[in-house]
Amino acid sequence: MSPSIYSSLLQPDLRLMIEENDGPGMEEFCRALYPGVVAEVLEEMPVEETWTVLRHCPAAQQAEIFQFLPLPYQMDLVQNIDRKTLSKLIEEMAPDDRVDLLERMDPDAVENLLPLIAQAERSDIRKLLSYEEHSAGSIMTTEYASLPADITVADALQRLRVQAPSRETIYYIYITDSGRHLIGFMSLRKLIQARPTARLEDIMERDVISVRVDDDQEFVANEIARYDFIAIPIVDSQNRLVGIVTHDDAADVMQEEATEDAHLHGAVLPLEDSYLITPFLTLFWKRGVWLVILLGAASLTAQVLNWLGPGQDRNWMVLFIPLVLASGGNAGSQSATLVIRAMALDETRGKVRQIAWREFRLGALMGLILAILALAVAMALVDFDRSTVVAATVFCVVALGTVAGSMLPLGLDRLGMDPALMSNPLIAAISDITGVVIYYNAARLVLGAVS
Amino acid sequence: MSPSIYSSLLQPDLRLMIEENDGPGMEEFCRALYPGVVAEVLEEMPVEETWTVLRHCPAAQQAEIFQFLPLPYQMDLVQNIDRKTLSKLIEEMAPDDRVDLLERMDPDAVENLLPLIAQAERSDIRKLLSYEEHSAGSIMTTEYASLPADITVADALQRLRVQAPSRETIYYIYITDSGRHLIGFMSLRKLIQARPTARLEDIMERDVISVRVDDDQEFVANEIARYDFIAIPIVDSQNRLVGIVTHDDAADVMQEEATEDAHLHGAVLPLEDSYLITPFLTLFWKRGVWLVILLGAASLTAQVLNWLGPGQDRNWMVLFIPLVLASGGNAGSQSATLVIRAMALDETRGKVRQIAWREFRLGALMGLILAILALAVAMALVDFDRSTVVAATVFCVVALGTVAGSMLPLGLDRLGMDPALMSNPLIAAISDITGVVIYYNAARLVLGAVS
Repeated sequence: MSPSIYSSLLQPDLRLMIEENDGPGMEEFCRALYPGVVAEVLEEMPVEETWTVLRHCPAAQQAEIFQFLPLPYQMDLVQNIDRKTLSKLIEEMAPDDRVDLLERMDPDAVENLLPLIAQAERSDIRKLLSYEEHSAGSIMTTEYASLPADITVADALQRLRVQAPSRETIYYIYITDSGRHLIGFMSLRKLIQARPTARLEDIMERDVISVRVDDDQEFVANEIARYDFIAIPIVDSQNRLVGIVTHDDAADVMQEEATEDAHLHGAVLPLEDSYLITPFLTLFWKRGVWLVILLGAASLTAQVLNWLGPGQDRNWMVLFIPLVLASGGNAGSQSATLVIRAMALDETRGKVRQIAWREFRLGALMGLILAILALAVAMALVDFDRSTVVAATVFCVVALGTVAGSMLPLGLDRLGMDPALMSNPLIAAISDITGVVIYYNAARLVLGAVS
Repeated sequence: MSPSIYSSLLQPDLRLMIEENDGPGMEEFCRALYPGVVAEVLEEMPVEETWTVLRHCPAAQQAEIFQFLPLPYQMDLVQNIDRKTLSKLIEEMAPDDRVDLLERMDPDAVENLLPLIAQAERSDIRKLLSYEEHSAGSIMTTEYASLPADITVADALQRLRVQAPSRETIYYIYITDSGRHLIGFMSLRKLIQARPTARLEDIMERDVISVRVDDDQEFVANEIARYDFIAIPIVDSQNRLVGIVTHDDAADVMQEEATEDAHLHGAVLPLEDSYLITPFLTLFWKRGVWLVILLGAASLTAQVLNWLGPGQDRNWMVLFIPLVLASGGNAGSQSATLVIRAMALDETRGKVRQIAWREFRLGALMGLILAILALAVAMALVDFDRSTVVAATVFCVVALGTVAGSMLPLGLDRLGMDPALMSNPLIAAISDITGVVIYYNAARLVLGAVS
């Protein structure tokens, strides 16, 4: 998060309050401003000062503000709080946010902390902590608004007023039977428009769109985006309501997945935190690993060149090696980029043949045009026969690169792997080896062997 | 949008209704299901059949369902509707969705259509059409809930009941004075918890976070995500409320921008529609242009090689050209990917020096390690002196590539251009030319000139 205008305007005031130890001022600061704005000002300050400020406001407010701080900052902050205050704070946090924090904390510290947390909250935490990472369960909150079907609209509104303070949202209300099975849905908008004496079961929507607790978080986010929902209900295998995922958490998941795909696609192991707060060594490791793997692939290309090349007077060939290899790699990057992004947006399912046929035609057409241009480029430096070798190679690598670039991510997906692993550099590396083989064989075919 | 389970389950039923011309059945189908689900079933069918179904339901319902259809499908569909029915449909659509559609339609057709649309809607359309593309104004809706400050909570709820059917959301309520200046904010959650006799001015939040109508859509989406809002108010230069942008439109903007960045980064001009529905020739053009530009860059590399190479017995050098060039390109891709993504998430502002220093150290460290590995690889094929040339070159290209890959996007941004234009293939092309120059000069320095 970058410092916004708020932060720079408000920080001096807050600093003054801290210096003067102005408790009521700090409390007012936390109460009057939107929690997200307060968090933005605080995250620019050292954790000790942040705690000095937060100490002056009630636990509920503390939790509100705390939730808007970035996770690594939260982690720093909890080191500076005594266990008792921390357990209070964690009790007040939204279930999904606190699980995010606890998952990152040292397991021993968490075990030390849990006994201090109220029983009901504790079992909720244990439950949420048990869901698999990246599942709907791991991002959901258990603080949803739910009502039985057999009450009137007036009763429903009365009950919602009571539920409101502790629920993540009361704008979507889920109707459950006595076994907690999800049987209906009602928006608050519809509810306040309805006749006060109407019964929920007569006006609720029965066709409720829900997702399963073990569905992938990306699927959940896509469903929320598809239907423009504020929240989506999460059910277990018996259609019992166990939680909701709200639109803001879905947006976070989307950003996270887009970032992860972008990183993978640039041949970086995905970072958990934002670029600037990722420690130097982590960054080094997550990039270095890939660079070494790719160097391994490139050294294969050197071996192939060594094997194809010796004893041949093909000094001229070196001129076009970068051009030939780049053309194939670029064509492959393009189609891989398009296909991987389309897969992330869930647009490719069942369309593999259509994609292959499309990329095949495109590859042939683009290959043809690039080959003609390459012929012209080569003619400026070498004779016609040799230029033909270059042009033919360009045609092959572009056509092949285009098709392979689109099919390899789909293949990875079928193997159950993340298609984004097929990064641009990896495609370039594969294309380099093939390109060299094609180039030398084209030369042999057109020019004959030179002994 | 891929066909979901709903679509495949429901389509046979609907087909039967169409065949039997079962009007009430089709109306029931449109009414009972969530509009997004109906749209999903319809978009898999030919437009004529879709219209056969929609004809049976009231205009408001038609518009609801219509809005969930993908834009290109909407465009096809409007060709099949007579002007009168179309104008009705457009009147019923949400202001932001209809402007999206009208912007894509033939301007003459729009001019023909406008006289048939009610006066109030017409001026609203003209206004929204006038905002610049990618501005907050272009994605906002004018259907927000607003109330004066001097009424009671009970009055407010009564007025909201009246406003509810025509507003995009009533969960966030904006308080304006007689000049439409935005003076306060109230959520429906707070409102239904408040004492019925309380006055809004006493309980509303006065610190309202808003954005300007000419702010960039990406900024608006980031603000909504930052504060977890359901909607954000849009004001003009005099702080008058002119519209709202809702969370679902913000999520669309984020997806759109992430897709655009991914495409640019893979050296594809951004597609307006999803990959599979983009016409073949558009796809050909948006990829071909870049491939040709990159071929131009690669032919420069050939020229440089031609200029550096002649008369030299450096047959061995060809072996490591792909390795040397790939190492530089990969290192550059990595840092460009990380920096461009961090910029999209608004994390880099004011941090240019910090980033440069970080990448400099990382580049040096990764360069050193890759150089050692490259030395080992080269020793297997050539003698020690020559291997030293390879290793030294790898160090330089990796270190340079890392720093340049991070700085070039920041430079583009400073020039007011989209940093994502610094695509992986472009960085690879720049790195190829530099790499060749470094490689040959390293050879000359270490081995001496071979005449």
